[in-house]
Amino acid sequence: MFADTLIKRIEAMGNPTAVGLDPDLSFLPAELLGRHSAPSRAVFAYNKEIIDHIYDMVPVVKCQSAYYEALGPEGAFCLKDTMDYAGNKGLIVILDGKRNDISSTAKAYARAYLDNGGYRCDALTVNPYLGYDGIQPFLEKCVEKDKGIFILVKTSNPSSSDLQDVILQSGKPLYEHVAVLVNTWSSRHKGTFGYGSAGAVVGATYPVVLKELRGLMKNTFFLVPGYGSQGAGAEDVMHAFDENGRGALVNASRSILCAWEKYGMKHMEFPLAARKEAQRMKDDLEKMLEYRRR
Amino acid sequence: MFADTLIKRIEAMGNPTAVGLDPDLSFLPAELLGRHSAPSRAVFAYNKEIIDHIYDMVPVVKCQSAYYEALGPEGAFCLKDTMDYAGNKGLIVILDGKRNDISSTAKAYARAYLDNGGYRCDALTVNPYLGYDGIQPFLEKCVEKDKGIFILVKTSNPSSSDLQDVILQSGKPLYEHVAVLVNTWSSRHKGTFGYGSAGAVVGATYPVVLKELRGLMKNTFFLVPGYGSQGAGAEDVMHAFDENGRGALVNASRSILCAWEKYGMKHMEFPLAARKEAQRMKDDLEKMLEYRRR
Repeated sequence: MFADTLIKRIEAMGNPTAVGLDPDLSFLPAELLGRHSAPSRAVFAYNKEIIDHIYDMVPVVKCQSAYYEALGPEGAFCLKDTMDYAGNKGLIVILDGKRNDISSTAKAYARAYLDNGGYRCDALTVNPYLGYDGIQPFLEKCVEKDKGIFILVKTSNPSSSDLQDVILQSGKPLYEHVAVLVNTWSSRHKGTFGYGSAGAVVGATYPVVLKELRGLMKNTFFLVPGYGSQGAGAEDVMHAFDENGRGALVNASRSILCAWEKYGMKHMEFPLAARKEAQRMKDDLEKMLEYRRR
Repeated sequence: MFADTLIKRIEAMGNPTAVGLDPDLSFLPAELLGRHSAPSRAVFAYNKEIIDHIYDMVPVVKCQSAYYEALGPEGAFCLKDTMDYAGNKGLIVILDGKRNDISSTAKAYARAYLDNGGYRCDALTVNPYLGYDGIQPFLEKCVEKDKGIFILVKTSNPSSSDLQDVILQSGKPLYEHVAVLVNTWSSRHKGTFGYGSAGAVVGATYPVVLKELRGLMKNTFFLVPGYGSQGAGAEDVMHAFDENGRGALVNASRSILCAWEKYGMKHMEFPLAARKEAQRMKDDLEKMLEYRRR
């Protein structure tokens, strides 16, 4: 059961964070790019360095599909190699693809990523705009193959208000309507800790919403982007956790990949800087969770 | 300007239809699958047969990304080869990927598909749930590189009502709110015929909605799925066209790919059957458009 595995791994490491492998080519040192015949090979080498430096202290990596697709078809092999490498190191692997389509096509996406086929993927992010019949094929695969999905509820970007905050006839914003749907879907297949295989993406950049949704979505595990470069801190993401300090995974991408800048290190020292920043983030969240428990 | 190119091509061929290259492996004859070392090679051979039999009478193909992703990383090359082959035959190529993400990541998706890079793609379908900052990077590429996007407004599946039909405080359904946003975005970069580079996906399975949205979205070109296997006929899709018979492209996938069954032909005759069905669809729409002009 994916949510159980995820929670156990987080607790074993004492670290509810994910490192986002979002390898924008501009993040790679020129020296590293120059060493490889193709950008996709350089990106894989880059990812390996990051993974090697964080796998013993971080439970999860999240690969942002767009950056692999931007490498052309070779990017698909780079993604596969990265997922394999991370999986072999014991990391849980989330693909951030925000996939969505009508039922028959959603089935094909579920086969692509949640079926132990071409890609070694433990969970996939999914967009809810098409409603339940576009979600169900993923949920079926989750049960059948012990996989997870994270459905977008309230995203971390400024324009998320354009649709997600629109006020409904009920007086509530759309994201609340989606939250209730997702929590219903999630409740159908719960694990030991009360969390289902359908999780939610809720941005840390809207802490008030995060707190509200934690109250509304008792059975839904949260994937929380927005910490770090997008501006949210530990005090913001705290609202994503339940009273036992469970129920959320906080992702940081750019702040970890580009930590060499913040720490005034050389560009080629990016893996050391990434580890340093991942450690700082772990400590930051730990301190806040402990403070909250008291 | 993409909308102009699309309209001119449609008018030159007298055919406002797209053939969906959605190669579910179950659609392929066993004989064809047996001839190839890998499913991705068989799919490319299958697609070539379809393209060879329709390129002189159909202006557009739409590749459903899920079916290529389901082939594993090799599927990315199959997609690229298919797009190249279709483009070389003079077809306009739409990738149905329903991509969506926050601004920086949407930029990477725009680079992936609308930048004449790894994939020969003329237009991409996009999901609006993240709002404008997730759309803008695509729009910029559309202007810069003469590309198009089609933003989901009202999809053809039964559960599209879960979110899209939710009634807002204004008394209107969410899809209308999205329709107004999309038409505003579309109006910023219009071509000769009044249509912008941001189109909309509006399912033919809801003809009343289609009619309403045609009235609301004067500057938005429609990509209309749902004809054929999903149950909509020419009388339903007619509402997608403007008074000049322009403004819509009707897609059919399964009804064309699997036409050999309907016509009682052998499975290996699928390309001939596809042509026959594509011709029938063209005639069907032509008749209806002529009837409407009178």
